[in-house]
Amino acid sequence: MTVALVGAGPGDPGLITVRGLALLRACDAVVYDRLVAPELVDETPADALRIPRDGLLQKQIDDLLVALGRQGLEVVRLKGGDPYVFGRGGEEALALAEAGIPFEVVPGISSIAAVPAAAGIPVTHRGVADRVTIATAHAADGSPPDYASLVSAGGTLVLFMGLGRLRELADGLIGAGMAAATPAAVVSRGTLPDQEIGIATLEEIADVAGDLPGPALVVIGDVVALSGQLGLQRRRTRLEDAPDAAHGLADPVLVLDER
Amino acid sequence: MTVALVGAGPGDPGLITVRGLALLRACDAVVYDRLVAPELVDETPADALRIPRDGLLQKQIDDLLVALGRQGLEVVRLKGGDPYVFGRGGEEALALAEAGIPFEVVPGISSIAAVPAAAGIPVTHRGVADRVTIATAHAADGSPPDYASLVSAGGTLVLFMGLGRLRELADGLIGAGMAAATPAAVVSRGTLPDQEIGIATLEEIADVAGDLPGPALVVIGDVVALSGQLGLQRRRTRLEDAPDAAHGLADPVLVLDER
Repeated sequence: MTVALVGAGPGDPGLITVRGLALLRACDAVVYDRLVAPELVDETPADALRIPRDGLLQKQIDDLLVALGRQGLEVVRLKGGDPYVFGRGGEEALALAEAGIPFEVVPGISSIAAVPAAAGIPVTHRGVADRVTIATAHAADGSPPDYASLVSAGGTLVLFMGLGRLRELADGLIGAGMAAATPAAVVSRGTLPDQEIGIATLEEIADVAGDLPGPALVVIGDVVALSGQLGLQRRRTRLEDAPDAAHGLADPVLVLDER
Repeated sequence: MTVALVGAGPGDPGLITVRGLALLRACDAVVYDRLVAPELVDETPADALRIPRDGLLQKQIDDLLVALGRQGLEVVRLKGGDPYVFGRGGEEALALAEAGIPFEVVPGISSIAAVPAAAGIPVTHRGVADRVTIATAHAADGSPPDYASLVSAGGTLVLFMGLGRLRELADGLIGAGMAAATPAAVVSRGTLPDQEIGIATLEEIADVAGDLPGPALVVIGDVVALSGQLGLQRRRTRLEDAPDAAHGLADPVLVLDER
């Protein structure tokens, strides 16, 4: 009996790990997040228990995993992204450790780099950014982040957030001293076929991309400008199909070699 | 003809993505980094060109990928970790874009979360850290980092660095105001069978872990303390086999529930 906390990756089912897929195909039960690719859940054996986590509180999930593990089942807890990157996997692992249930953590491709990559944005790039800060744009209690420390961090900022607070975020960062002209991107439903991208200056990003559907990731920093060269390779068709040209790579795209 | 920049993951060959493995198995040529698992290179077809990148400068690799792509080959550029996270994949992608060679970026599991995970450390944890800063511990020109901004960033610090400068790093962070008692970990050869872990306070980490073999990742922050509960599940045997008990989870481990 083992409970495996498996990262499903950012959306595209092909981005699960080989190890994660092997565990899915051999499991007795899977407990899965709403946002994981349904194709992955379909990879479990036909007689496996398939339990969506919808409606369960974190504590209930912890208890469910312990209960399934105690029954001697091979359990996969399939989580979006990476279990240990804003995935609350640490809480599930602690519950299993405290109950004496053997567990394994199988990392997943986190959105933090894969979603920018799918938009043609390397989060680090020689001579452009050698540091990345990853944060939620507001605390668990809803309070705003410490904008000053986000600004002083330097390098690329990658933010998990609801787009409803995008203007508040941009205003907060600019108020704390970040240049209004800093390139910013919103990547909506990154790596999925209906991915959409909005790119603008920090000052204008809320106008350009504030209405994109979630889940979305916000990327701020000079690396965003690389998207002009690297983003069109794979995404041209999708971008041209996007319902609103402002969500594509139209103006005000900032291209690296113009700087 | 396509050149795929594929992330091989942090070391364990099972942590490549399903998509990455499929491309490897179908390629005409692979150009691979020294640190990727040999098992992955062995997955390429028997008649595939297998080109180690050893001794090639970045510009030479860029040119090689363009040349192979121009010949109409299906090429995999297999890189450790994730191509776009301290992987210089952006430079290779730019070279391909400028040459008009179609390319694809297949993200890999970056060391930044997977290596701490293998040591029982979630880089984020509710109530402990909701922010992660990833950096190289010295700039490309060898100059030290801006310690003040690393300290003010808050949350978890994940640093790619040579351990030879670990004491300099710790002294710099403490000098810039980080608490000397902050938990710190060095994870050497993370996710590989001979993984070793050193855990101590920031003040003592260089004494405890400065002589571990590379490649190594340094993790600093309160989440490190979770390793006392989460790290033993998978690693007990390996840790007990480690040559020096000080490299295991012996004192001065800081366990979360003691705080």
